[in-house]
Amino acid sequence: MTRIYNFSAGPSMFPESVLREAAAEIMDYKGSGMSVMEMSHRSKTYDEIIKNTRSLFRRVMGIPDDYEVLFLQGGATLQFAMVPANLLTGSGKADYVLTGHFSTNAYKEALLFEGKEINIAGSTKEEGFTRIPQQNELTFTPDADYVHICENNSVYGSKWKYVPDTGGVPLVADMSSCILSESIDVSRYGIIYASAQKNIAPAGLTIVIIRKDLLTDPLPGTPTTLNYKKMAEYNSMYNTPPCWPIYIAMLMLEHIEKEGGIESMEKRNIEKAKLFYDYLDSTDFYKAPIAPENRSLMNVVFRTVNEELDAKFVNESIAYGMTNLKGHRSVGGMRASIYNSMPKAGVEHLVEFMKEFERENG
Amino acid sequence: MTRIYNFSAGPSMFPESVLREAAAEIMDYKGSGMSVMEMSHRSKTYDEIIKNTRSLFRRVMGIPDDYEVLFLQGGATLQFAMVPANLLTGSGKADYVLTGHFSTNAYKEALLFEGKEINIAGSTKEEGFTRIPQQNELTFTPDADYVHICENNSVYGSKWKYVPDTGGVPLVADMSSCILSESIDVSRYGIIYASAQKNIAPAGLTIVIIRKDLLTDPLPGTPTTLNYKKMAEYNSMYNTPPCWPIYIAMLMLEHIEKEGGIESMEKRNIEKAKLFYDYLDSTDFYKAPIAPENRSLMNVVFRTVNEELDAKFVNESIAYGMTNLKGHRSVGGMRASIYNSMPKAGVEHLVEFMKEFERENG
Repeated sequence: MTRIYNFSAGPSMFPESVLREAAAEIMDYKGSGMSVMEMSHRSKTYDEIIKNTRSLFRRVMGIPDDYEVLFLQGGATLQFAMVPANLLTGSGKADYVLTGHFSTNAYKEALLFEGKEINIAGSTKEEGFTRIPQQNELTFTPDADYVHICENNSVYGSKWKYVPDTGGVPLVADMSSCILSESIDVSRYGIIYASAQKNIAPAGLTIVIIRKDLLTDPLPGTPTTLNYKKMAEYNSMYNTPPCWPIYIAMLMLEHIEKEGGIESMEKRNIEKAKLFYDYLDSTDFYKAPIAPENRSLMNVVFRTVNEELDAKFVNESIAYGMTNLKGHRSVGGMRASIYNSMPKAGVEHLVEFMKEFERENG
Repeated sequence: MTRIYNFSAGPSMFPESVLREAAAEIMDYKGSGMSVMEMSHRSKTYDEIIKNTRSLFRRVMGIPDDYEVLFLQGGATLQFAMVPANLLTGSGKADYVLTGHFSTNAYKEALLFEGKEINIAGSTKEEGFTRIPQQNELTFTPDADYVHICENNSVYGSKWKYVPDTGGVPLVADMSSCILSESIDVSRYGIIYASAQKNIAPAGLTIVIIRKDLLTDPLPGTPTTLNYKKMAEYNSMYNTPPCWPIYIAMLMLEHIEKEGGIESMEKRNIEKAKLFYDYLDSTDFYKAPIAPENRSLMNVVFRTVNEELDAKFVNESIAYGMTNLKGHRSVGGMRASIYNSMPKAGVEHLVEFMKEFERENG
């Protein structure tokens, strides 16, 4: 068995210890005589798994008691629809800040809701999404039902480094690509949602952390499993939940606790990113387009001096035991996603390769 | 490691060989250097997995070329909403046949759609859902957009043994608890859908087999990932699919082919069910409430002479290496779900226990 450094933007790497544990228990989970994949979601054993996962989330992220933790399906893309379906029940107005690919997709999905007012509160599209707008560039609608942001932009490689002041309007944040990577103050948000396949679990699980006062009746016609209030009432068990990803999330959260918690993740992530960005800043051969003050710790976007060399870079990186370094189709160049489970050695390995590639092609 | 006979209605048993294969590949899938859980869904390796799974479904089930196979999330419960959202675009009328728990839930979910006409074309509710209505008991709306049935009723233990003639209206069937258990003529249906956690894969994957002419624009406001047409256009990859359950589905379908295909599954399932029902019919100690001509091959519902003994039965079965024999809360008594992966030895073991329990308590 040879493991590879996988820089995929998601699904992405797991710690080897988590995979080993899952493999060891796959035929017989703790003497239950069955795999977690075979367990009734109503069984006592599985109930302990889902409750434990929920408690771990609360503890690891410091989630206050007035928030619910939901385990849903459909990815962040379904949240793009669930947020308006559940929250556009007051004034029917919402504000979106456009900072990249997924925040734009979220905005477009909200436009599907007829008779509502979906506003753009700020955008850096004209600048190629190379930075996050500052507070004074944002225009919020005072009576909006919510403000939506994408906290970390995995395609462009930027991140919000401050929590915007929305004047009391609930802030909804897509944290798919940065959840569990650094400490956050959950109480500043109305809803935090995240697809699992970057820092939490395999694809197929979506986490929603929602302030309890936002658990109200959704728009008429909203499907039951898209109804936050209903899913909270049923403890995410209205129907069969994605049992296996929830179990892997439990193993991942246990791993994070064992490693020193989210503060320790953050420290390591800062170290890994610094190593990478410091090298990028030290050379003219590679360019990092994102404004330094908005650089993501999770997704490092860069390019060489031309597209031909970009392609060569991606091609040659494979022989060095690295994969998925090609940038998103809408951006080009390269992207290295260095989520929690990417070891520091992986980033060092990549930087070594980058230096060598520069020597040979610079 | 001691494996147990798990009679859960779902999630439910897998063949040991499938679990062993998944365990063996969990750290490094076929020399890729990573787990399937870590793979980019856009990678070449994963693309082969999803394409292979789709081809296997087509081959194993004999799906005609004018049908699409979609890999979705949200379970059958989300299909209860997706079917009306996508099909109620003509007359706005739909017919539902009520034969148990989930067909009733599907009907109730359709009622959420305002301004539509949702009819009950037939129901055996008054008889405690102990049988499936006959063709001459069904009243279909000639210009309905679709007719909905639940092919196998996992809570009550009954199954449709004929395909109702809907007069040309597309027939939509929830086959969650019987898909892959016996041969069917796909061309008789407009849509077949199934949650994966009985005969296909772990929870978190939903299969939709849809006739291509039904891939039309849905009702306004339908979320993108709930739009069959859009999901078909993107080959179920509009967003990240539930990669791991799709991979396990591939292993399961390969296993079915190796075992002789669906005809072989059907033969074994008939044998297993006969063993069980023959015994139930031979004694007065146990009662099987479902009309013999409508008995499910997958879910056998039965009870003893009183509730006290039912509870004792469930309790004592655990010491015999069996689990999840308690009936659904809405029915009581016992239920043994004997899906494809329940070995014949498991049913024999259960019948042996039943005989002994009868001797001691009869």
